[in-house]
Amino acid sequence: MLNYQLDRTFAALSDPARRAMVERLTEGPATVSELAKPLPMSLPAVMLHLKVLEDCGLVKSEKAGRVRTCRIEPQRLSQAEKWVSERRQMWERNLDRLGAYLDETKPEDER
Amino acid sequence: MLNYQLDRTFAALSDPARRAMVERLTEGPATVSELAKPLPMSLPAVMLHLKVLEDCGLVKSEKAGRVRTCRIEPQRLSQAEKWVSERRQMWERNLDRLGAYLDETKPEDER
Repeated sequence: MLNYQLDRTFAALSDPARRAMVERLTEGPATVSELAKPLPMSLPAVMLHLKVLEDCGLVKSEKAGRVRTCRIEPQRLSQAEKWVSERRQMWERNLDRLGAYLDETKPEDER
Repeated sequence: MLNYQLDRTFAALSDPARRAMVERLTEGPATVSELAKPLPMSLPAVMLHLKVLEDCGLVKSEKAGRVRTCRIEPQRLSQAEKWVSERRQMWERNLDRLGAYLDETKPEDER
């Protein structure tokens, strides 16, 4: 289940327009028009990107009257961050271990 | 340029087989056969996934004789991590600021 969510979160983040929308929403909630304003595309195109962001759970939106307001769901962002940072840390630990091994196995006159 | 690299890195990470390959490579270099072993797919399918990982710069491989050895390129992983963690931190800062604002604007008898 987590795996499938990560698939969709990373796929959602692979588009620059969607990353721009996420970036805007980290500053606080925004209406769809506010999200669309800086983007070089039509409102329907923005709505499609919003749907991808909502489907993967990165963003939630609510309609009040004619205005749809969007906000970020930080939990999904944290999940993606956790996956990447754990992999990076694992790599660094293994690199340290390799360094220690190379130090130990070095001939004495080279230490 | 960084934007385009992030597109490809996140797209590469949106597939569970490719994430499994990255995960394996954080433990150290591996041959293509070693990468393929735990995956429920053919060797040509693994080679295609490897190509995606190499194209976005997450993985490098070298052929010595008949054996192709792959290793992780930690820089790309760090870039993706940085993007996500900066967005999460920005969101938290803005949440703190909102909290402080709400505290300040609270009627005195509710403080």
